[in-house]
Amino acid sequence: MLAHRSIRQRAERLLALAATLLAALVIAGCANPGDSASASSPQAQPAATAVLPSWRDGIARETIIHFVDDVTRQGSPSYVPPDERIAVFDNDGTLWSEQPLYFQFVFMLDQVKAAAPKHPEWRNNPAFRALAAHDQAALAGQQKEVMKLIAVANSGMSVDEYDSTIRAWLGRAKHPKFRRPYTELVYQPQLELLAYLRANGFKTYIVSGGTVEFMRVFAQRVYGIPPEQVIGSSQRVKYEMRDGKPVLVREPKLDFVDDGPGKPVGIYRNIGRRPVLAFGNSDGDLQMLQYTAAQTGPHLALLVHHDDAAREFAYDRQSKVGKLDKAWDEARAKGWTVVSMKDDWNVIYPPGAGQ
Amino acid sequence: MLAHRSIRQRAERLLALAATLLAALVIAGCANPGDSASASSPQAQPAATAVLPSWRDGIARETIIHFVDDVTRQGSPSYVPPDERIAVFDNDGTLWSEQPLYFQFVFMLDQVKAAAPKHPEWRNNPAFRALAAHDQAALAGQQKEVMKLIAVANSGMSVDEYDSTIRAWLGRAKHPKFRRPYTELVYQPQLELLAYLRANGFKTYIVSGGTVEFMRVFAQRVYGIPPEQVIGSSQRVKYEMRDGKPVLVREPKLDFVDDGPGKPVGIYRNIGRRPVLAFGNSDGDLQMLQYTAAQTGPHLALLVHHDDAAREFAYDRQSKVGKLDKAWDEARAKGWTVVSMKDDWNVIYPPGAGQ
Repeated sequence: MLAHRSIRQRAERLLALAATLLAALVIAGCANPGDSASASSPQAQPAATAVLPSWRDGIARETIIHFVDDVTRQGSPSYVPPDERIAVFDNDGTLWSEQPLYFQFVFMLDQVKAAAPKHPEWRNNPAFRALAAHDQAALAGQQKEVMKLIAVANSGMSVDEYDSTIRAWLGRAKHPKFRRPYTELVYQPQLELLAYLRANGFKTYIVSGGTVEFMRVFAQRVYGIPPEQVIGSSQRVKYEMRDGKPVLVREPKLDFVDDGPGKPVGIYRNIGRRPVLAFGNSDGDLQMLQYTAAQTGPHLALLVHHDDAAREFAYDRQSKVGKLDKAWDEARAKGWTVVSMKDDWNVIYPPGAGQ
Repeated sequence: MLAHRSIRQRAERLLALAATLLAALVIAGCANPGDSASASSPQAQPAATAVLPSWRDGIARETIIHFVDDVTRQGSPSYVPPDERIAVFDNDGTLWSEQPLYFQFVFMLDQVKAAAPKHPEWRNNPAFRALAAHDQAALAGQQKEVMKLIAVANSGMSVDEYDSTIRAWLGRAKHPKFRRPYTELVYQPQLELLAYLRANGFKTYIVSGGTVEFMRVFAQRVYGIPPEQVIGSSQRVKYEMRDGKPVLVREPKLDFVDDGPGKPVGIYRNIGRRPVLAFGNSDGDLQMLQYTAAQTGPHLALLVHHDDAAREFAYDRQSKVGKLDKAWDEARAKGWTVVSMKDDWNVIYPPGAGQ
């Protein structure tokens, strides 16, 4: 009885997520490339010796540096021992771009298309036909069905096979606006912040609504974050023997949604401590920020505001992808630090990438 | 539909676990104290400078030391980079004692008794009456009902309140045979092994059927293992506001069973890498050992054999708690390292504790 209620709750949350994603899909025109504003010219890099060189002088940069100094200086009243210096970062829109459509969702849809030859029964499936034809009007009414196709297309294989599939996709896929691999569309100022925190004894985690297996493929190489520090949504996996070898096989069942109220739960499950620093960019990060800001000790809650149409994208309250509305109000009310992409960041992407 | 099947599978696994636990409970006489063999006399500690001083010279100790040397020596053909040196340890029966009844289960039953005044409806509940009266014959037929009482008694509070409850219990509870706090009944040779592995760049994890919140309370202090490196079974938790503060509240629902085939799943969820070393003691560790032994690179699979009735307990194939049967056969067939508590360990518990 209790179990049934929980299934219903999960299903509802999944559908809410699906609704958001599909709406985004429709708006984005199935990730059609290229109709956007031209990228700005590259900017000179400040001296490499400075702390957070891609952050412009301002309240955001000062707040971060003062906080880190406060919690790491021996004898400081706000001192936090190294093993409690847990910093959690959302991924989509906080560490890398998320427009026009979450990159991982683009991958999942590509998986559906790639799986089609093995599923002749899809030929008459209205959701699949709408997807294949980029028929946005038809897709709008097929959210549940598309999510089912995604679950099927992204299951059945072992976790190692899935890992290789993601790796291959990331190696060849390009962003429709910037024409660069997705893994180059990470924010240079955030790479510097992650490194700066680690140099100061922080353990840096990703806590994302994206799936854990997708992010683990590049998190170490791109962010310096090892697989065990990546927390995300997940499909269920099952232990079994295949050809006498023990493998974990992906099942077409959602296991955990690490989004919204799921984020503090994911943090509790995988870390077991309340973070001292949390960085997000959307309403999906609200509860993670609240949970961190309710820490009895020192803490810092931050939000990226996407206000840079020229160098990246500009969106907030009305956006289907990465909507920033309730969290924005709460940040103002509670004095959380809001980082303006346009004003606080010298550079958006790493040199040579996407700009 | 898929969701329902998964719930049924979980429920079945929970019932299997419940059956084992309750059988153990009946056999153990509700953890009645004191009727057991007398403890042996303290043993002299070898020189503190030696590696693994509480391990006697022999194949087990040699195998461990050679393995660690092989995977850490630069230029060795078996070299493993530090970030891949993942070592996983079962807890009950591998790092601390588990007889006559899993310590955490004793705690959970004490919680049922403590919650009774708030549940007048339990007065006529046959399972509760059997439990309160230590009526073993009646208990044997009430397994499902007892598990329900446990779920109720161990839910409702916030995770912080639960943490305090466990902490208080561990501070006052004593083992029925050794008359010592449970946290003193950890194996000295294993404490040395954990420290030795960490000194050689390994990341040490607990992967246990016990619940994550119970172990996290003492894992750092006793084993030097931080909360984020404790993987276990878990009840579901839910994010909510209580008196305007965000808290995680325990629900009376099982979320994950980290036992048997669940152990490789837990490892994948929380670590995302295949371990190079796994140490268990029972059939509940079989899949974790198989999964580690199927690692393409160097690896080491180990089992504790409880064959020391004088200093601890002697049990294997026929035991209700910590049964070692299939894993024992597979260890022999595959050449895994079996550690004899009697022959390989100089000392069982830390000096001054339980012997």
